[in-house]
Amino acid sequence: MKKAVVLLSGGVDSVTAMAIAMHEGYAVHALSFNYGQRHSIEIEKARRSAKAMGVAKHLVLTMDLASIGGSALTDSIPIPKNRDAAAGAHEIPVTYVPARNTIFLSCALAWAEVLHAYDIFIGVHAQDYSGYPDCRPEYLHAFEHMANLAIKAAVEGRGKIRIHAPLLNLGKADIIRRGIALGVDYSLTHSCYDPSPDGEACGRCDSCLFRRKGFLEAGLTDPIVYLST
Amino acid sequence: MKKAVVLLSGGVDSVTAMAIAMHEGYAVHALSFNYGQRHSIEIEKARRSAKAMGVAKHLVLTMDLASIGGSALTDSIPIPKNRDAAAGAHEIPVTYVPARNTIFLSCALAWAEVLHAYDIFIGVHAQDYSGYPDCRPEYLHAFEHMANLAIKAAVEGRGKIRIHAPLLNLGKADIIRRGIALGVDYSLTHSCYDPSPDGEACGRCDSCLFRRKGFLEAGLTDPIVYLST
Repeated sequence: MKKAVVLLSGGVDSVTAMAIAMHEGYAVHALSFNYGQRHSIEIEKARRSAKAMGVAKHLVLTMDLASIGGSALTDSIPIPKNRDAAAGAHEIPVTYVPARNTIFLSCALAWAEVLHAYDIFIGVHAQDYSGYPDCRPEYLHAFEHMANLAIKAAVEGRGKIRIHAPLLNLGKADIIRRGIALGVDYSLTHSCYDPSPDGEACGRCDSCLFRRKGFLEAGLTDPIVYLST
Repeated sequence: MKKAVVLLSGGVDSVTAMAIAMHEGYAVHALSFNYGQRHSIEIEKARRSAKAMGVAKHLVLTMDLASIGGSALTDSIPIPKNRDAAAGAHEIPVTYVPARNTIFLSCALAWAEVLHAYDIFIGVHAQDYSGYPDCRPEYLHAFEHMANLAIKAAVEGRGKIRIHAPLLNLGKADIIRRGIALGVDYSLTHSCYDPSPDGEACGRCDSCLFRRKGFLEAGLTDPIVYLST
């Protein structure tokens, strides 16, 4: 059985990407990060999804990205609420974490090298976050090219690293429909940037708003509870 | 004054690369990693070099690479001693840490983005470690290309990330000569993979052997003390 490393935040996108990797027949090695995010509840939710979906292994890597700063997700910068996210789609929001996809993919590459795996899944998609350069196909191709020059097995031709971004051209509603078709239990997922101490979603941050809009457009009921309607 | 991020392990190579960055007029932002290495004494040594050389800032990032495994530097795999390193130059030693340069450069990129810096220095050199794919110029160029697609300032043309590897074509003796010419105090550096609890160098691991050979070939006295001659 081929192994794949799947970046798993525990949100709708990464859990759906994980379901797709499993559907494609990979033994999934899920990789999550405890990076100093204020919404670290997502790690617990990632564990639950990984367990429920029967991954081969789930690794949570600790990394202090908060010390680099520059993001509302790790700094004390307030999380924007009730933003018209569609209107701001070409601006990078303060919740952007500098070079996060590059750092996470690099760690996935390291684990892939140890596992002798060559397939890495990431749940990025261009539509919702068109302001993030590191969600675009040209970025992902450049990362893949670099990765194939970075590790010995690839350089020696024993395998070729492939970065899979199966959600790249899907909107949120399509992603949710795809996940439902694959049996994803979205009640186990977490999306909110600013949850309550008990882990309840605020309902008003960009991530909550995108999620709610996605379920609405898909004509489906979001199974999680929001503090604010 | 232009800012640069310099990857600083506290060894001969990175301290020399840092001296070159300073000589070229950059305000140096040194980045070190506490990644679960058994020779974590190098972090303390990196702090001393950074302080002695008057860097603008020194950041030590904590990251649990030991949980990924696959290296004698983070696992309980024994560190090879008295190896004929020259003979094994085309084999990757067990002290290799999977994708480490990619992970470290990615974090440097994140910090550069926060600092509005575009220059990243890394002290890799091809001669001693010809078995490491991620020390080769083609790898460094591919990383640079990817980096310029990853961050907004580069994509929007406000600056272009440059990966500087000023030691790339130098041997260890040349590196040491260059550092001495720039006033580097090598008594503050640390190279050993397997130091004593007091931080004394073993004298017999690959890193100690390369260092000693370098000082010998340069006709200079290594100012640090070794446990074994």
